Amino acid sequence: MLTKNTIKQIASLRQQKFRKELGLFVVEGRKMVDELLHSHFETVNLFATEAFLNDHPAFAEAETVSEMQMEQMSGQDTPPGILAVVRIPEQKEIKTSSRFMLALDGIANPGNMGTLLRTAEWFGITDVVCSPDCVELWNPKTVQATMGSLFRMHVWKADLPTFLHEASSNGKAIYGALLEGENLFEMREKAEGVIVIGSESHGIRAEVLPCITRPVTIPRVGGSLTESLNAAVAGGIIMAEMTKP
Amino acid sequence: MLTKNTIKQIASLRQQKFRKELGLFVVEGRKMVDELLHSHFETVNLFATEAFLNDHPAFAEAETVSEMQMEQMSGQDTPPGILAVVRIPEQKEIKTSSRFMLALDGIANPGNMGTLLRTAEWFGITDVVCSPDCVELWNPKTVQATMGSLFRMHVWKADLPTFLHEASSNGKAIYGALLEGENLFEMREKAEGVIVIGSESHGIRAEVLPCITRPVTIPRVGGSLTESLNAAVAGGIIMAEMTKP
Repeated sequence: MLTKNTIKQIASLRQQKFRKELGLFVVEGRKMVDELLHSHFETVNLFATEAFLNDHPAFAEAETVSEMQMEQMSGQDTPPGILAVVRIPEQKEIKTSSRFMLALDGIANPGNMGTLLRTAEWFGITDVVCSPDCVELWNPKTVQATMGSLFRMHVWKADLPTFLHEASSNGKAIYGALLEGENLFEMREKAEGVIVIGSESHGIRAEVLPCITRPVTIPRVGGSLTESLNAAVAGGIIMAEMTKP
Repeated sequence: MLTKNTIKQIASLRQQKFRKELGLFVVEGRKMVDELLHSHFETVNLFATEAFLNDHPAFAEAETVSEMQMEQMSGQDTPPGILAVVRIPEQKEIKTSSRFMLALDGIANPGNMGTLLRTAEWFGITDVVCSPDCVELWNPKTVQATMGSLFRMHVWKADLPTFLHEASSNGKAIYGALLEGENLFEMREKAEGVIVIGSESHGIRAEVLPCITRPVTIPRVGGSLTESLNAAVAGGIIMAEMTKP
């Protein structure tokens, strides 16, 4: 039985403070929950409305709740009808499983953060290291913007200068998008390494800059007056170019 | 003198209905207003707080308003202190000024819409045709996400099948991102033409599909299970690849 207290607790997970305190986050919607259930993440509770279950009998394992209970738990204006409470996984040691890793330096917008993860997975990059001031991964907007990629990736939080120094000592190239660098489209040798994406407002921060061993530039075309690209778009273009055969 | 009625009218411009009725939209923030004043757009009113003008004397032409008046007019939680009311330009005939044009088919998210324009300008694409159901260009979130590119571009609203048929008859290639197409990174001949980007949820719609003469695909890397890329990221990767020398 779903108690009022549980409903209140689940609603509280909209706030980072309570996600941290309880070690839980929320996933909503058919596609996202489907991807969750096929992942190694631990689903603590699964709730669905009767209307949702009538349309999607495959989710019969969910506990049935009323529309009003769902509205109270859901963080969305129009609750999709299925909601999971998920355990935040413990942070393990950073390990590389593919040729490139992604390092995010102060990404503040949940949409950008989620989109960067989704794009990384498209290009076969499944290991991501985030600076401690990146927007929280378990923020509902971040989770949503990953479109489920989150459940198939390894994401760590770490001090970037420390991590990048170590990666560099281990022979990895450290790529970073800067205004003055090698032309991305003319790079010859693309050694395995880490691709660093800077924040929306400040780019790669001063303490991280000395770690960049391969500065790269996405050249502007013609007399464009645009000052910069969106962080997720820049990241996408670099990952596409770096990983293409 | 700023009257209560004017304040109310400017605040009403947060809603599309009133933007349409009055033919006006709002631009906020130092950088955006600076780009506006260097553009061919007609600024109808320019307001700034005393605190803003003390820090930015270059904007002395602005009418001084109180913090409270600014809060009432501004659509932002933390008003940046400068706000312009701008005339929505009349739609002129569609003309091509560069090798590629962009066509947006049902882009619904203002952030994606603005980011696509910003990215297009970076790659020298300044002519954009939007389907009538794209999110409104003068929506404050769209305006903001363009980061000022909007003021240097030509954006039209038109029925896409009609426009694309005509472009095709005039010998233009019509490129579109589809799951089954030519590998974007192996394209040999990149004839001038129109790049079509589909909506976030449905991609390129059925009526537009027959107009695509050059379907292109951004190949996934490895065994990635991601179903799609974000519309703005996909657009960025295609524009980068098409326009590179």
